[in-house]
Amino acid sequence: MKVGVVLPSSNREWLADRQAAYAKWARPGTEIVSSALHERVPSDADPSDSFVLPEILQRMLEAEQDGMDAVIVDCMEDPGVEEGRRLVDIPVIGPGHAALNLAVTLGYRFSILYPLEQVRLIEKLVQHHGLSSMLASVRYLACGLKGMRADAKTMLGYLLEAALAAIRDDGAHVIVPACTLISELTGQLGIQLRERGYPVPVVDGPGAAVKLAEDLVDMDLAPSRVTYPASLGISHRIE
Amino acid sequence: MKVGVVLPSSNREWLADRQAAYAKWARPGTEIVSSALHERVPSDADPSDSFVLPEILQRMLEAEQDGMDAVIVDCMEDPGVEEGRRLVDIPVIGPGHAALNLAVTLGYRFSILYPLEQVRLIEKLVQHHGLSSMLASVRYLACGLKGMRADAKTMLGYLLEAALAAIRDDGAHVIVPACTLISELTGQLGIQLRERGYPVPVVDGPGAAVKLAEDLVDMDLAPSRVTYPASLGISHRIE
Amino acid sequence: MKVGVVLPSSNREWLADRQAAYAKWARPGTEIVSSALHERVPSDADPSDSFVLPEILQRMLEAEQDGMDAVIVDCMEDPGVEEGRRLVDIPVIGPGHAALNLAVTLGYRFSILYPLEQVRLIEKLVQHHGLSSMLASVRYLACGLKGMRADAKTMLGYLLEAALAAIRDDGAHVIVPACTLISELTGQLGIQLRERGYPVPVVDGPGAAVKLAEDLVDMDLAPSRVTYPASLGISHRIE
Amino acid sequence: MKVGVVLPSSNREWLADRQAAYAKWARPGTEIVSSALHERVPSDADPSDSFVLPEILQRMLEAEQDGMDAVIVDCMEDPGVEEGRRLVDIPVIGPGHAALNLAVTLGYRFSILYPLEQVRLIEKLVQHHGLSSMLASVRYLACGLKGMRADAKTMLGYLLEAALAAIRDDGAHVIVPACTLISELTGQLGIQLRERGYPVPVVDGPGAAVKLAEDLVDMDLAPSRVTYPASLGISHRIE
Amino acid sequence: MKVGVVLPSSNREWLADRQAAYAKWARPGTEIVSSALHERVPSDADPSDSFVLPEILQRMLEAEQDGMDAVIVDCMEDPGVEEGRRLVDIPVIGPGHAALNLAVTLGYRFSILYPLEQVRLIEKLVQHHGLSSMLASVRYLACGLKGMRADAKTMLGYLLEAALAAIRDDGAHVIVPACTLISELTGQLGIQLRERGYPVPVVDGPGAAVKLAEDLVDMDLAPSRVTYPASLGISHRIE
Amino acid sequence: MKVGVVLPSSNREWLADRQAAYAKWARPGTEIVSSALHERVPSDADPSDSFVLPEILQRMLEAEQDGMDAVIVDCMEDPGVEEGRRLVDIPVIGPGHAALNLAVTLGYRFSILYPLEQVRLIEKLVQHHGLSSMLASVRYLACGLKGMRADAKTMLGYLLEAALAAIRDDGAHVIVPACTLISELTGQLGIQLRERGYPVPVVDGPGAAVKLAEDLVDMDLAPSRVTYPASLGISHRIE
Repeated sequence: MKVGVVLPSSNREWLADRQAAYAKWARPGTEIVSSALHERVPSDADPSDSFVLPEILQRMLEAEQDGMDAVIVDCMEDPGVEEGRRLVDIPVIGPGHAALNLAVTLGYRFSILYPLEQVRLIEKLVQHHGLSSMLASVRYLACGLKGMRADAKTMLGYLLEAALAAIRDDGAHVIVPACTLISELTGQLGIQLRERGYPVPVVDGPGAAVKLAEDLVDMDLAPSRVTYPASLGISHRIE
Repeated sequence: MKVGVVLPSSNREWLADRQAAYAKWARPGTEIVSSALHERVPSDADPSDSFVLPEILQRMLEAEQDGMDAVIVDCMEDPGVEEGRRLVDIPVIGPGHAALNLAVTLGYRFSILYPLEQVRLIEKLVQHHGLSSMLASVRYLACGLKGMRADAKTMLGYLLEAALAAIRDDGAHVIVPACTLISELTGQLGIQLRERGYPVPVVDGPGAAVKLAEDLVDMDLAPSRVTYPASLGISHRIE
Repeated sequence: MKVGVVLPSSNREWLADRQAAYAKWARPGTEIVSSALHERVPSDADPSDSFVLPEILQRMLEAEQDGMDAVIVDCMEDPGVEEGRRLVDIPVIGPGHAALNLAVTLGYRFSILYPLEQVRLIEKLVQHHGLSSMLASVRYLACGLKGMRADAKTMLGYLLEAALAAIRDDGAHVIVPACTLISELTGQLGIQLRERGYPVPVVDGPGAAVKLAEDLVDMDLAPSRVTYPASLGISHRIE
Repeated sequence: MKVGVVLPSSNREWLADRQAAYAKWARPGTEIVSSALHERVPSDADPSDSFVLPEILQRMLEAEQDGMDAVIVDCMEDPGVEEGRRLVDIPVIGPGHAALNLAVTLGYRFSILYPLEQVRLIEKLVQHHGLSSMLASVRYLACGLKGMRADAKTMLGYLLEAALAAIRDDGAHVIVPACTLISELTGQLGIQLRERGYPVPVVDGPGAAVKLAEDLVDMDLAPSRVTYPASLGISHRIE
Repeated sequence: MKVGVVLPSSNREWLADRQAAYAKWARPGTEIVSSALHERVPSDADPSDSFVLPEILQRMLEAEQDGMDAVIVDCMEDPGVEEGRRLVDIPVIGPGHAALNLAVTLGYRFSILYPLEQVRLIEKLVQHHGLSSMLASVRYLACGLKGMRADAKTMLGYLLEAALAAIRDDGAHVIVPACTLISELTGQLGIQLRERGYPVPVVDGPGAAVKLAEDLVDMDLAPSRVTYPASLGISHRIE
Repeated sequence: MKVGVVLPSSNREWLADRQAAYAKWARPGTEIVSSALHERVPSDADPSDSFVLPEILQRMLEAEQDGMDAVIVDCMEDPGVEEGRRLVDIPVIGPGHAALNLAVTLGYRFSILYPLEQVRLIEKLVQHHGLSSMLASVRYLACGLKGMRADAKTMLGYLLEAALAAIRDDGAHVIVPACTLISELTGQLGIQLRERGYPVPVVDGPGAAVKLAEDLVDMDLAPSRVTYPASLGISHRIE
């Protein structure tokens, strides 16, 4: 099967890296096809910016036309996922909801590690999906979003510190790092937690999204049209 | 004070009618200034369409620049309200949330009368604002959206039928019609219900929105920047 | 319009001060008419005392007879508001619920600043109105109720300390001081918070109550008789 | 032990009947001591009337002074129970909450049978005690409050009809008749349901209240002063 | 009446002690009949172990055959209680649920004191019975399960420390120690709290269970067969 | 990978059929290894019977010892899944929770089709996993459990009737048939619903379970030891 990944940015330099972050989770037979936004989008635009939304949706429409079996948006805040489900017939998947939803199959209460001080931006995803009663906490990653480009060892230190605080002080049973950029570190974070005596699963967003895409395609399932009625309006970017 | 009303449509023929629907609720000293979307938006676009969103936001930005003290979006689904609160500093108000919020000051449980069969589109507004436990029901208005252009008497018949069903069968304590187009009938609906022995308030969306705008401006209040962090990205339509 | 304010105390010395606290929020054309309880009520009675309740209700009945268009009880615990709604036909408004309800239109989660150690007394108001999921915390104002008569600067210090703790430690998005006595300081509290980098709205109880009274009268709305059935019994104080 | 029962009415003709309704549940060693309200209360006053509240509280204070070990208010709406807990140190018990609380130890979801069309009056008791998620329905007893004085067989017919509807249509697991006047019929209602193939417990309010009183006295427990802080004000009726 | 108590252990040396823990709460006329599990169960088995469950159920069946009027399982995690209710017709009672349920009649929010670090094991009981919104916290008793065999004074110190933390830091209104082994100390814990200025009820599990058993037998009530359908399968241990 | 399927029955005649029900969903490289319970279990035992539980757990332990990478229990009520997670280190998966969890990624509200009149038995699974707010209804399949052995066409008629009622009358957005025996019909049910104008996903339990097993093994994830602490007791059947 072919799974499209929409990078919600026009920065093509990141494409190879993002392609790899998803491809590592794909099983044999799953092809990951990533694409960036149109060049007209400023290269430093925020993926969750409302003015960027139509550009993401446009790429979803193109992904469907290009024969993708499912499409993922590469951002844990799931920008455009709810809206896109009304526009295309293939499954649209957000790594944020996919990770949270996998987390609650593994434990009773999860904490999110988040690189922005504006924690409300991720908390509202939890609330939107009816999972508030299972949220232990959102922990701010002290490195910030810019610090995420630090070397792996430094970054892992930040993740470990926040995860331990979530487990010890907030009662987290499962950890969900909420930035797809640090996807390569989730495995190591889980190992480090186990070594310190906390056998707590760490759920990776891109991994959860790829698996959910494969599951839905295998089972021939798509989002409900009662929850996501076909769009009543136009279905292309206004130029 | 000046309160902007954004008609989420490019159809200028409706402007006078919409201006009136809000102006009738304005107290002395409140000026309603309505504006339609740019002509590039197809005239039959759905106000809640994701591709229309940037056009609504653009009008909000212009409303702030034009010296409005607050801005309202003329649609009960509140398209662009949450997003706009991150873009401008003046209060952004949706008639949907304003009406629901006023409804719960008047009674324990409300029903919504809605002209689309896709009731999920309004139900998610209720859920988003944490009011699900007070929702008695969403009743579909059998006339449909197109039937809303019927004469007042016919339309009132549909509203009355749905409201009575909501009260008798669903246990509604308060009624919220969810279409700003029938704003002129809410008063009559309330009277008819009372005459039939049901002293149940009927909350008008445009009215609730104008009153909330006046209240917030009077009290020098604006939405919290913790809930609505200033946008991290671009602040204009991508052309 | 005429809006009655019932001071839930027999202490007439406070009437001018209380009148002013509400009148400052009234728009042109709104007349505030305040009244104290009958002299038989001990001057140091607690406004929320159950034995004082009939005296408050009696004043509400008189307010309606005197031609008031709406009536407010001057206490953030809203004593007599629910009961009064069953006795009179004009809107009965509590500054507590009015403020909480305005707070949730501005942000996702609020904290209450409260001058009594018995925080349950205000928390139950939150619970009663179905707002528990939006309550970040109740913060005790360390000055206590008696300290509220301190000079404005000292009092503002207490409010600021509690508000900052609520924002930083409890995740408050909006602040609601729960004592009508410090109404004159809410504006300054908001400014001080903004100056410290926390653009968090502070909602004033008397202000919210006056605005809600004006809104309901403008819209010809009154509480639902399904939620508040007309009293089945006597409608006057038992002597 | 001695358990006071306050009849929230001044009608002394009913005292013997009410005394019996509670005494039948008392275990050996428990003495039921019932008392009516002062004669100044109109004989047809509604027990839940706000103006009657101080009279009920006055009787509670007297019950404590008279050496009662606990006190019950004879009405399923529990008038004065929350307020009284702040005034006296002995346990104050309402048959409404006692019955609901016993119901949820026996099954997952209960229905209430209620003789007033104003079902909100009992529904708010459910909500106040955090039991809404376990409420299947409130079923109106078609006989009405006046019909409750009918002969036992007629009355049992009404109860049975409502209970069967609650079980079959609303998914009730437990039945709580919400009128203390029909206490003598709860046992028969349970038997009739069982005979019709519905082994669903029927919880009697007076019975639940007497048992809870005995339990609390046996265990030397009283309501928490954190939930019910000692009254901050006067502790006697204002004359 | 006769109330069976099943000690979920095969250790007969504890029987006298456990018998006493329940008998002290029994009113005149109530006979407590305790029994241990069959000797084939390892003497150090965990009462909540899944492999022990059939042994507990077997004892319940025997208790019913032996003419018990109700049966209690002596462990605050209520092992086998839900399952047993489907097997026998007499009331099956767990001290955990009985205590929690009594706690919420006394105050708005409770904390549990628990001797295992695996607090989830008791938290899930709270969740199962729909009481999560009333749970202030679960406090780990630093002595651990083994420390429970310490002398009474030492043990009381641990309980007091945890209870005070729950009241001051977590906002507990009621305290529920969740280990039946320290039942003899609950009375003293309540006294000590009162002496320190915290009039907070302490609810004893065995006491709550005995009282509930007496209540249900007095009222001729048993769990609902809609919530607990009669077992569809075998009704004896598989050998 | 190897995925064990435990048939919670001793009836070996069914093994081939059950093996096939799961194998049809396995991707290349996933081997399904099914096993029945020990012969000592009566052949007509109810899979959810408490006395059968240790036998299911025993099979889980054996599955882990036999090198399975994950283990599934073949019953939508998920008997033994919560308990088994405390006993083994490989993922233990129930088709019930797996299906519900997949359902909520596809739509806002689901209905369950269930072949037993005792709907509480499946409703408690929903409640246990915190999904009650997303449950539209449980619809009884009028054929009953025995009718499930009917021919496919008859059975599909029952499923279709119940699904249509759930969608039209209960507001279901997604359908979850809760019997693994009719797994082969879920695909056809989805097609039939679509043909009748209801594009509503139908989630198959065995399919959801196999996919979740594959996902967790791929991602090297197992249930949290905070939610499911390692058993504190014995880890084998008591003989």
